[in-house]
Amino acid sequence: MIDKMFEVEAESGNARTGTIKTQKFSIKTPVFLPVATKASVKTLTPEEAKKAGCEAIIVNALHIYRKAFNIVERIGLHEFMKWDGIIFTDSGGFQSIKKFPAYAHDEGIFFKMPDGKDEIFTPEKSIEVQKKIGSDFLFALDDCPSYPYTRKRIEKAVERTLKWAKKCQGERIFAIVQGGIFEDLRKYCAEELSKLNFFGFAIGGLCIGEPKDKMLKIIEKTALHLPYEKPRHLMGVGSPEDIISCVKNGIDIFDSAFPTRNARHGTILTSKGKINLGKKKVKGENIDDECECYACRNFSLDYLNYLFKEKEMLGQRLATIHNLYFMNNLMKRIREDIEDCKI
Amino acid sequence: MIDKMFEVEAESGNARTGTIKTQKFSIKTPVFLPVATKASVKTLTPEEAKKAGCEAIIVNALHIYRKAFNIVERIGLHEFMKWDGIIFTDSGGFQSIKKFPAYAHDEGIFFKMPDGKDEIFTPEKSIEVQKKIGSDFLFALDDCPSYPYTRKRIEKAVERTLKWAKKCQGERIFAIVQGGIFEDLRKYCAEELSKLNFFGFAIGGLCIGEPKDKMLKIIEKTALHLPYEKPRHLMGVGSPEDIISCVKNGIDIFDSAFPTRNARHGTILTSKGKINLGKKKVKGENIDDECECYACRNFSLDYLNYLFKEKEMLGQRLATIHNLYFMNNLMKRIREDIEDCKI
Repeated sequence: MIDKMFEVEAESGNARTGTIKTQKFSIKTPVFLPVATKASVKTLTPEEAKKAGCEAIIVNALHIYRKAFNIVERIGLHEFMKWDGIIFTDSGGFQSIKKFPAYAHDEGIFFKMPDGKDEIFTPEKSIEVQKKIGSDFLFALDDCPSYPYTRKRIEKAVERTLKWAKKCQGERIFAIVQGGIFEDLRKYCAEELSKLNFFGFAIGGLCIGEPKDKMLKIIEKTALHLPYEKPRHLMGVGSPEDIISCVKNGIDIFDSAFPTRNARHGTILTSKGKINLGKKKVKGENIDDECECYACRNFSLDYLNYLFKEKEMLGQRLATIHNLYFMNNLMKRIREDIEDCKI
Repeated sequence: MIDKMFEVEAESGNARTGTIKTQKFSIKTPVFLPVATKASVKTLTPEEAKKAGCEAIIVNALHIYRKAFNIVERIGLHEFMKWDGIIFTDSGGFQSIKKFPAYAHDEGIFFKMPDGKDEIFTPEKSIEVQKKIGSDFLFALDDCPSYPYTRKRIEKAVERTLKWAKKCQGERIFAIVQGGIFEDLRKYCAEELSKLNFFGFAIGGLCIGEPKDKMLKIIEKTALHLPYEKPRHLMGVGSPEDIISCVKNGIDIFDSAFPTRNARHGTILTSKGKINLGKKKVKGENIDDECECYACRNFSLDYLNYLFKEKEMLGQRLATIHNLYFMNNLMKRIREDIEDCKI
């Protein structure tokens, strides 16, 4: 049952294409998941995200638990946010609680609810919550220290992550490899997790401040120690360049706020490179000559640039639609290149 | 030619229905125009505004002149913002320039361009700009003092407004009646303007701080002195209650930021009254049982309320769609009630 839900289909070097299936949906990998942290792909309707080519999104389970659990455990995330596609839920995001910093302990993660009440996400509780809100693909609870960190702190994180993972095993669940920028710890964590019963494996704790070359090296090395037949998810990495390098190292799934956050800040990705909107010197008829997205089909670069200059919200919407379309199109081309052994 | 563009069709007391025609479009009155001050109905695509029932919008000509004239005089507002419907342009909005307050002078309105350069909108210049940007219906330049004002200042404003109006006459142009809260000045201004060659007449300088009962009284009295066969536009008034009273006094066209601004601040208009979103006590499946708008057809009140709590932009979009649909539906019912002599 579990193995059938992911299948590698084509290969080129370490890069591979595949299919992830649920009862209702099927998606091709390598795939990019936009973040819908709070159960909304920021600025868009679910319909628009779909039309931009998104088939799966990632929602933060902790956020839903803290802010909308009563409703969502009753009707499910799909119905709540009207997303007719695959939903991954992230077990973490504790750093987003601003009033009171969450902290990791051997038992789990301690945090406060909005009303000030203390709570703990044990590994079991985290999975229970993700299941109750109706997630399609879940992540095991992990201990993810913020950067910079000491080797000692990372050793602790690996120990906790492994201990917790044992309590989280099951179908549709990804384990998360920790180990910071230490190759030996990553190898150890990946190998130990690989012995457990998981649907897939994620590489976490990267793209949080460590040097870029270090990050790419760690991803390359870690992926080598993950089982071939299981999907590999890289958490929080999302620039086109990084995605291309990581696909070459065998990553199947990416999630990142990169395209949507950049869009809201006025940076769009185009076939001719990045454009920073809201600037006097930006001019032209077409946003991106080679793009077929809703924004490119309907509006000019002049108007989009003007909307950013005037801080009109429609600008952020159109830029978000464009960037997501760009990313999904990039993933499509990557899959074709793998099939054609061009990558 | 001019007279054919507006026709009164049914009456009930002083209320009337009619049709305004341009070469390409025709709209039924009484009608509500959402504001698209900066060439965007805030948060929406033109398509969404259309689907919410909007057929005509009002754009601020001064804003376009200051921020996007180079492009817009070349391609026109319709093409710039991709609005396939009627565009009214407001000649005023000088108070929106924050860095340097604009001021009225006998010759016109003095203001600064974004680069600091001094400019003057004479009556002729204002019309020229509105024509160049491709407006369907234009407004003559008027002198609109801010509230509170003295009678003396209003006398001056009426004198200037009449003097300027003489230089602005023409087809597709509305003259604006000034006169503050002084019935005799309103009567005088309305009567004098009525002698000139205009497509329609607007009542301006209200809803800017004067007492509500005073405002409604002035509208009632002023409308009596405007020619029956010409459309009557009330500027800046937009709550459902005020619209209903003013329709009874013979107003045909309304424009206001009321529904869109309220939506962005989380207040929606429903068949059961207003709802303030983002509050704990707001709960329920349907946003508005009696509404068929995109938001009501696709999302729950619970989700919409949650989006406002979380400050997710999609909330503002859905609320804007709903409020505009509500207003356009209200106008439709008002027209039916006039036809059935129920108003």
